[in-house]
Amino acid sequence: MTFSELGVPFRWCSRTWTMTKITRMAKPCRGQFAIASGCRLLSVKPVDPPLTSERYKVSRLPFSQVTAQDLNCFQQLVPGRVVTEEDDLRSHNIDWLRTVRGHSKVLLRPQNTNEVSEILRYCNERNLAVTPQGGNTSLVGGSIPVFDEILISTALMDQVISFDDISGALVCQAGCVLEALDKYLERRGYTMPLDLGAKGSCHIGGNLATNAGGLKLLRYGSLRGTVLGLEAVLPDGTILNCLNSLRKDNTGYDLKQLFIGSEGTLGLITAVSILCPRKPGAVNVALLGCESFTRVLQVFTLCRDRLGEILSACEFMDAASMKVVQTHLKLNNPIPATAFYVLIETSGSSAHHDEEKLNEFLAQALDTGLVTAGTVATDQTKILSLWALRERITEALAHDGYVFKYDLSMPVNKLYTLVEETRARLGKSAKTIVGYGHLGDGNLHLNVTAESHTDSLLAALEPFVYEWTAQHRGSISAEHGLGFKKRDHIHYSKSTEAVHLMQKIKRMLDPKGIMNPYKTIPSSD
Amino acid sequence: MTFSELGVPFRWCSRTWTMTKITRMAKPCRGQFAIASGCRLLSVKPVDPPLTSERYKVSRLPFSQVTAQDLNCFQQLVPGRVVTEEDDLRSHNIDWLRTVRGHSKVLLRPQNTNEVSEILRYCNERNLAVTPQGGNTSLVGGSIPVFDEILISTALMDQVISFDDISGALVCQAGCVLEALDKYLERRGYTMPLDLGAKGSCHIGGNLATNAGGLKLLRYGSLRGTVLGLEAVLPDGTILNCLNSLRKDNTGYDLKQLFIGSEGTLGLITAVSILCPRKPGAVNVALLGCESFTRVLQVFTLCRDRLGEILSACEFMDAASMKVVQTHLKLNNPIPATAFYVLIETSGSSAHHDEEKLNEFLAQALDTGLVTAGTVATDQTKILSLWALRERITEALAHDGYVFKYDLSMPVNKLYTLVEETRARLGKSAKTIVGYGHLGDGNLHLNVTAESHTDSLLAALEPFVYEWTAQHRGSISAEHGLGFKKRDHIHYSKSTEAVHLMQKIKRMLDPKGIMNPYKTIPSSD
Repeated sequence: MTFSELGVPFRWCSRTWTMTKITRMAKPCRGQFAIASGCRLLSVKPVDPPLTSERYKVSRLPFSQVTAQDLNCFQQLVPGRVVTEEDDLRSHNIDWLRTVRGHSKVLLRPQNTNEVSEILRYCNERNLAVTPQGGNTSLVGGSIPVFDEILISTALMDQVISFDDISGALVCQAGCVLEALDKYLERRGYTMPLDLGAKGSCHIGGNLATNAGGLKLLRYGSLRGTVLGLEAVLPDGTILNCLNSLRKDNTGYDLKQLFIGSEGTLGLITAVSILCPRKPGAVNVALLGCESFTRVLQVFTLCRDRLGEILSACEFMDAASMKVVQTHLKLNNPIPATAFYVLIETSGSSAHHDEEKLNEFLAQALDTGLVTAGTVATDQTKILSLWALRERITEALAHDGYVFKYDLSMPVNKLYTLVEETRARLGKSAKTIVGYGHLGDGNLHLNVTAESHTDSLLAALEPFVYEWTAQHRGSISAEHGLGFKKRDHIHYSKSTEAVHLMQKIKRMLDPKGIMNPYKTIPSSD
Repeated sequence: MTFSELGVPFRWCSRTWTMTKITRMAKPCRGQFAIASGCRLLSVKPVDPPLTSERYKVSRLPFSQVTAQDLNCFQQLVPGRVVTEEDDLRSHNIDWLRTVRGHSKVLLRPQNTNEVSEILRYCNERNLAVTPQGGNTSLVGGSIPVFDEILISTALMDQVISFDDISGALVCQAGCVLEALDKYLERRGYTMPLDLGAKGSCHIGGNLATNAGGLKLLRYGSLRGTVLGLEAVLPDGTILNCLNSLRKDNTGYDLKQLFIGSEGTLGLITAVSILCPRKPGAVNVALLGCESFTRVLQVFTLCRDRLGEILSACEFMDAASMKVVQTHLKLNNPIPATAFYVLIETSGSSAHHDEEKLNEFLAQALDTGLVTAGTVATDQTKILSLWALRERITEALAHDGYVFKYDLSMPVNKLYTLVEETRARLGKSAKTIVGYGHLGDGNLHLNVTAESHTDSLLAALEPFVYEWTAQHRGSISAEHGLGFKKRDHIHYSKSTEAVHLMQKIKRMLDPKGIMNPYKTIPSSD
């Protein structure tokens, strides 16, 4: 018996195990949809959100304002790459979720580190605030100016600098798009250790700046382990070159870690060195149905034990998540509707061995009644189709209405309790409430939609969600970062002493506070 | 054909593949020898090394000296745990390699974080310098006072705080011995993601403080990825609790990274949270002989491709390394003598699959002439015997004479060139020159012994080794840290801007400079 092909319905162990052809989607779309579809989203909901400063009632700090003379200087620093037209700036002033809007009047497009250095040196001297922007895919308003901060885009810094095909060390500029890097590596038998829904738009520099987690973390670990080095420009224009490509280096403090996850508040990442794993020889993806979250947890434990070193992803989504991708994106659920779905990916070096392991796991999952239905894919197109069901939830939700997003980590057995309690609490005041996420990482994405943003719904959600998470010793931002929207909630996850030390670090590196102000770390004033 | 048992000599592919019984060692000794054998080493070479301050001609900074009143205060803070007898202090004032010696007059043994906090607050107010000490296994003089710094031992902080057998998150005090933790986990089906020769003595807090690499890094990645949280006491006594157990947490700057690898110069790590992997179901170890380093590199490439996700270690050692463990420790080399040896370990979830993969790899390695002889072990005793050959080199060298140790990382194809050039350069002025290390991590341990320390041999080695490493864009300390001995060589691996920023961080966290002074970061004065 083999699970290696889709399309063959069969009966097994007295249970119906339906394997349905997934052929309705015109083409694979993983990675190309989410942010690339920003245009579509704009056409769906053309109304601009209110200015961030007004909705959130924040006050502008006393930075200088950009003058005509400043613009002249910028023209000299990055000739022909100074954007000031309002229409051209619009998409850079709004996040793709359309929840925050800034009012920057100028965007600079440097091509190299020296230009970034000169820009920052100038801005620091002139006390001009800046916001670095990569693919503008932040989900917490991290890449949008709050007021009129100068935007510095990494879009033109998109060159691969080197790749070592013995060690797998890739060195590139910060503006390389994640998916483009993965394609570059694929041709060389390697893959990026990072994958996420926004891969078609997000920049590797932005990935580092937010310490992006994503879909491969279970297998390859976090960027804090896979990033070998980086280059960053400090707010005063100093170029900090920590761009080594060594797997091990214990010479002094590991400065790169300061910039990973600091969301552009300490400096601007201009280049990255990252350790890339070999592209796996065999990949299998299974979508399984479970009747309860208890069963989901049992499936997780079982697959971790049975699949061991070949388990590369273990994701879950609830029935409401499946419904939004079916409704708004017309995706097909290939298995009978049920309360929960688990997506399991294996990546290994031997197709034969992996298939045996997967079959043994599936047999046990069925025999013990943990799983009620499932489908397995091994070819790339069908794998992408299954992944789309999980990856495109974020996009589908954006079609559903205004989205209140929560990205939480907590003990895995508590993950879904919060979704249930949120449903009970909100009743009919929300349009849709979904729970999905990275089961293997203990990372829940709780999303609540409504026709539009309302203060009453926000008040019902916050601080409730944060307090609940803190009570269970969780994190109020597992992988999205704090950005603008969650900055002032940091104390739910960090002690006073920790926040105080972060503020000292911020002051040390950026005494004027020009780097991505109003973000990540609460003001110490 | 199976490789799963030792002891069966056979002929294969027209080459002799000798599988010899390794039965001469009385008992497995991995992990128990290196530092636990400190007593033996003392009896071998009873002469104390000169005081560090004299040998290295450093000047004492103007810290206060410990007074009788200070000792009274310490007695109140840690009653009955203030050590002042010179005999009791001796082993804490000398590193186990017997290369550095301090002259501390007091050692404090706190049992918990609050006691550490009170000690540091007092010392900071009194301007008393301190040196944290775990298992005292530093190879760079990081855990030994340079003058009369107060020693703070973590030996009595050895309690496991919690273990989550769903997530694998272990939380414990900093003074837990690495091997004890591994045994604790073994009973629960888990293992530590870190392993090194000194595991029988080293403390987990010290492992973090030095960002120890070791033997499992190839598989589980560095501590920067596996450490989930830590608690540290800052020099002013502030307790910084970042002890979460979440796989993901992006709420602000990742402060724990500041303390990992900072060698006790920014604070004292008091507790650790670390993500532990499941204990592998099947482990195989192969010791292979290669006629040249070119062949060693080819074996590495081949095993990475063929063994993929089950490859958990790839170590190499040269003939001179094998000779020292045979000569000084009477270990048995189970395969015919050759120029190089590669030790490969696989760890997977299926003994059958792993064996198949290993067999295919070995068949190809033999067929293509990469390997001339080899032996494979699957049972624990024999696995430990093979590992001992590699792990006990450090110990054997200490019996050989005074050891000049270099722990370097560089592109893997350059690893052995430096050993050859060092041999050519030193000629007969050295007693033994060995090259071994973590092939999979690009990490060379170059060790040179002589009857005693001589300035002329040191001058022949330094800056030669550092300059050579820097020319090849390597690191002058891959995993040992800089400690005292290598502090002033940091510029070979780090830029001026980077060192300057490290100095700023040091001043920010430790304005009086009391924490492990003269170590890691060059003074900014």
